Amino acid sequence: MKAESKSRKALERRLEIARAAAAVFRRKGFAAATTEDIAGALGMTKGSLYYYFRDKPDILWFCQNYSLDRMLADAARIRRSGAPPAARLRDLVRSQMALMLDELAGTAAHIQTDALDRSRWRKLVAKRDRYEGELRSIVADGVRRRDFRAVDPATAARAILGAVNWTITWFRPGGKRRSDEVAADFAELFVEGLRSRK
Amino acid sequence: MKAESKSRKALERRLEIARAAAAVFRRKGFAAATTEDIAGALGMTKGSLYYYFRDKPDILWFCQNYSLDRMLADAARIRRSGAPPAARLRDLVRSQMALMLDELAGTAAHIQTDALDRSRWRKLVAKRDRYEGELRSIVADGVRRRDFRAVDPATAARAILGAVNWTITWFRPGGKRRSDEVAADFAELFVEGLRSRK
Repeated sequence: MKAESKSRKALERRLEIARAAAAVFRRKGFAAATTEDIAGALGMTKGSLYYYFRDKPDILWFCQNYSLDRMLADAARIRRSGAPPAARLRDLVRSQMALMLDELAGTAAHIQTDALDRSRWRKLVAKRDRYEGELRSIVADGVRRRDFRAVDPATAARAILGAVNWTITWFRPGGKRRSDEVAADFAELFVEGLRSRK
Repeated sequence: MKAESKSRKALERRLEIARAAAAVFRRKGFAAATTEDIAGALGMTKGSLYYYFRDKPDILWFCQNYSLDRMLADAARIRRSGAPPAARLRDLVRSQMALMLDELAGTAAHIQTDALDRSRWRKLVAKRDRYEGELRSIVADGVRRRDFRAVDPATAARAILGAVNWTITWFRPGGKRRSDEVAADFAELFVEGLRSRK
């Protein structure tokens, strides 16, 4: 087996464990859940779980760090695309929602807790801030080019992030609307909301 | 003392306790905080705290129920105003943000927990649903009158509520922008985002 495919397999296994862990966290709460519960839910031994993760907070860290890395990679791709601000904003909103609602749905990527140690916590906050900065730059660029109204980019970025982040509290796969339909509506609402009436 | 002013005094006292309790909840976590901690933070005895609240979940219930009642009263006033949908949407967003960020800031109005008993929980959920329904009606009315684009009112309402609810995670009084400035920007973003290009 090639190294790349081996590491992809390990990543997939880690994501699988993360999903099972998230279900246990939701049922029992993060504090009350044990690594035995998580291993049990997967039909694996505690020992083999420890091959992939050091402890419970390590699972949480993996999910949150992985999702932020993916979001930052999307943001960098979009920044380099050279597309106009409205198109970049649309792309960013859709990419983040696809990641959150489809791919990482059911992982512990969004659990709010103070279980992480300070150094990991700071790393996550720094990545979150960088992502927010990418979004703010798109808005600021749109304002500069007069594609967008003269809004405060920080406030607009936070409105958008709030709406997008909140979806994890209500969106249920298999419901009335697909995640990409919701994402398209959200993207349109923000782009139209920012667009200047030239 | 008149009955009305007496009950207003009691309400103010309850809100004061709720604010002190919220600070303790934030510091120690809802599960770890005790009524002794809360009484201690107020320099009052546990006995006099029990005059106002039965227990810890009772404080949480009071905050959440009180804020939803206020939000629903605002929504009813706005519904009866007969103003056009765009003006009603602006008014609703600003009213909710003023309540959340100024008046109830620092109370336990937004703590997410499963500490409430089922019957109280169901009452809160029913009120939240009613409030969401009020917002959805404004959007639907705007679509019907063609003031707004032909959006899905439920999706738009959730985008708006998400952005507004998320503000409690980042807005800090005394920061760069006042809450009413942020609220005005949010209201404009959504109204412009929904407005049809007639």
